[in-house]
Amino acid sequence: MNATVTTLTEVQDPKALVADMGVRARSAARTLAALSSAEKAKALKSAAAAIRADADAIKQANAIDMQRAADKGLSGAMLDRLKLDDDRIEGIASGIEAVAGLNDPVGEVISESERPNGLKMRRVRIPIGVIGIIYESRPNVTADAGVLCVMSGNAAILRGGSEAIESNRAIHAALTRGLAEGGVPADAVQLVPTTDRAAVGAMLTAAGLIDMIVPRGGKSLVERVQNEARVPVLAHLDGINHTYIDAAADPDMARAVAVNAKMRRTGVCGAMETLLIDTGYADPRQIIDALADAGCEVRGDAKAQALGAGIKAANDEDWDTEYLEPIVSVKFVDGVDDAIEHIAEHASGHTDAIITGDEATAEKFLKTVDSAIVMWNASSQFADGGEFGLGAEIGISTGRLHARGPVALEGLTTYKWVVYGTGQTRP
Amino acid sequence: MNATVTTLTEVQDPKALVADMGVRARSAARTLAALSSAEKAKALKSAAAAIRADADAIKQANAIDMQRAADKGLSGAMLDRLKLDDDRIEGIASGIEAVAGLNDPVGEVISESERPNGLKMRRVRIPIGVIGIIYESRPNVTADAGVLCVMSGNAAILRGGSEAIESNRAIHAALTRGLAEGGVPADAVQLVPTTDRAAVGAMLTAAGLIDMIVPRGGKSLVERVQNEARVPVLAHLDGINHTYIDAAADPDMARAVAVNAKMRRTGVCGAMETLLIDTGYADPRQIIDALADAGCEVRGDAKAQALGAGIKAANDEDWDTEYLEPIVSVKFVDGVDDAIEHIAEHASGHTDAIITGDEATAEKFLKTVDSAIVMWNASSQFADGGEFGLGAEIGISTGRLHARGPVALEGLTTYKWVVYGTGQTRP
Repeated sequence: MNATVTTLTEVQDPKALVADMGVRARSAARTLAALSSAEKAKALKSAAAAIRADADAIKQANAIDMQRAADKGLSGAMLDRLKLDDDRIEGIASGIEAVAGLNDPVGEVISESERPNGLKMRRVRIPIGVIGIIYESRPNVTADAGVLCVMSGNAAILRGGSEAIESNRAIHAALTRGLAEGGVPADAVQLVPTTDRAAVGAMLTAAGLIDMIVPRGGKSLVERVQNEARVPVLAHLDGINHTYIDAAADPDMARAVAVNAKMRRTGVCGAMETLLIDTGYADPRQIIDALADAGCEVRGDAKAQALGAGIKAANDEDWDTEYLEPIVSVKFVDGVDDAIEHIAEHASGHTDAIITGDEATAEKFLKTVDSAIVMWNASSQFADGGEFGLGAEIGISTGRLHARGPVALEGLTTYKWVVYGTGQTRP
Repeated sequence: MNATVTTLTEVQDPKALVADMGVRARSAARTLAALSSAEKAKALKSAAAAIRADADAIKQANAIDMQRAADKGLSGAMLDRLKLDDDRIEGIASGIEAVAGLNDPVGEVISESERPNGLKMRRVRIPIGVIGIIYESRPNVTADAGVLCVMSGNAAILRGGSEAIESNRAIHAALTRGLAEGGVPADAVQLVPTTDRAAVGAMLTAAGLIDMIVPRGGKSLVERVQNEARVPVLAHLDGINHTYIDAAADPDMARAVAVNAKMRRTGVCGAMETLLIDTGYADPRQIIDALADAGCEVRGDAKAQALGAGIKAANDEDWDTEYLEPIVSVKFVDGVDDAIEHIAEHASGHTDAIITGDEATAEKFLKTVDSAIVMWNASSQFADGGEFGLGAEIGISTGRLHARGPVALEGLTTYKWVVYGTGQTRP
């Protein structure tokens, strides 16, 4: 517990706190489930206006967080994540408006059939119910995740990082005021009022109160959530992503995609971490040089090392490492089957790509590689809800059930069966 | 551990056993995922033929189980569940052939789009991977669940009840021999070779090895699975199902549906357990008399008790009880809102029905009641994969994620994103 945060409830039992929030969230979720798309969109627009109206209050709250973080000696990168200025606050507001413009999946008829006895069956999309979001220093998640839940008819229980607590509270206050003006109950988006870490544990074990947990943050957070949760979790732990350069790849494309996949942004989960090169590929040196020229450290197997002086030896650990840095491991493989084998053993099921001009080879890769996203002739950096046309993203999932890859509104819904009869009884 | 089952591996560490089975299952799942629908259907037909060919061996094995069960003093109902005769073995074989004829969801394109940068996105259905089935005395589950997994491209790890071990082994031997003749690897359907209960615990915690657990059996089994599992579970614990008779219900329909919903079979999860009657309904006495005439014990609130001499008082526990017996609890409610309120508090999210001639009232009920199945003017006894047109059923889920209600082949699949590019890099 952060002793400097004196305004928070420190006495309440975290389990009781989360249970109370869960009951109120369930009740709000029932109200939300009955709202039309237009009503939800209107409430979101009102929330965006409230964020804009509260810009000064949000900046003041953020200044307290920033000062506290600086006093604690947080790194420049951490401070940058925490910081809110006019541009970022406008970004939050316009982000809310963008979500208001998204296609609402609730009510969609997924399938429909009629039985010989005249019973009509429909599967209809409905909200999941109550979503728990556990996140770290970026205060914009308070708004981003909150409105994605509301637009898909779900109540949200938000638990942000202690370092952003003042900013989160200011954003939350504006958000809920705006939503309430638009007819969404205040309990639809609740912020856990304590920075006590036990509250996270209480959320993770709140089966029946919280229907799904989405962790947003670094690996240690996601790991804790996945290990402790008794509630389903939507997340990815690692993005150990491979790009395989096939013998039939166009050299210019191979070079450009490899450099982009690794170096565009090295800290994102869609970044390539391992480059697999077919031993039959004509000019691997060119790709490796381009990566090195772009500032990337190259670690390779013996064949890769033979290509240049600057290439360090990759050890066993390298094939299972998500660097999130300008470092790449390079391995030569004997064709697509060998590449698929390596990926099956080492990938984290996030995003894996093949570069080839050969359609049959590509189709084999796309069919056999068992990751949430498989790509042909494209950079793995596209692994993102916005780039996939979802308009937003609550997270990227490498789990196998419910929703995989980038997840936005549809992944925040489930369905029910609606049966229309005329008095049928079962023989 | 059952000391009389001397042929089983008793020395192996259950965790190591399950881990080894899991690795082999994963490898078989990769082979299965690449098979066409026709190939899988052919293998299933070959498995059905093998079951028929082994009918005598299966009956002999079953006789050992039956004798052992009789010696142990198992109840008549338990013995009936365990028993295999020619009819039931033929039922298993023809059930396999029916699954072979089902529409294979693997490969189905769920959605498709093209981005402004030319990237084409597809979501394609794929098998989940490795499914663990934990079941009790009915040996037919060995075949039923095994072939549903294979037809949807999944490997299965089966753990049947110790009382059916000889029958399960005989069915499993025929099944895998037939599947192998049809080109499906032997490890695609594995039977846990020990009756050590620790093997169940090892399955439930085999995250990464087993992707989903389906328990098939009584409440204590499902409860243990849900409490201990670290792997996603597809199941329902209770079927506390309500039928609400609205003031605008047709009396003949109301009576017929209520009696069928309760009394057709009282031991199934789709049976009605609580009857809610609108205080505005004209002749409730007629429904209650019909239930009593059909042999049902009626427990009611004060208003219900006032209707007849044979009606016992329902206590608080009755509203939360799945009787699975010819007993019904009857409560009077003030219209559909009150009914919805009672259902929200007491239902288990399985199947809840409204009987009314008023469409607006029905739509309110169907929209607001948050159960896996909601019905209008139909008996809750229809809650079944076959009746829903799924052709089979691996189980009924009251969970909120992935799949709800009756689940067959589609619920045993997930999807991946397949991205087609022409060398796109992300700006």
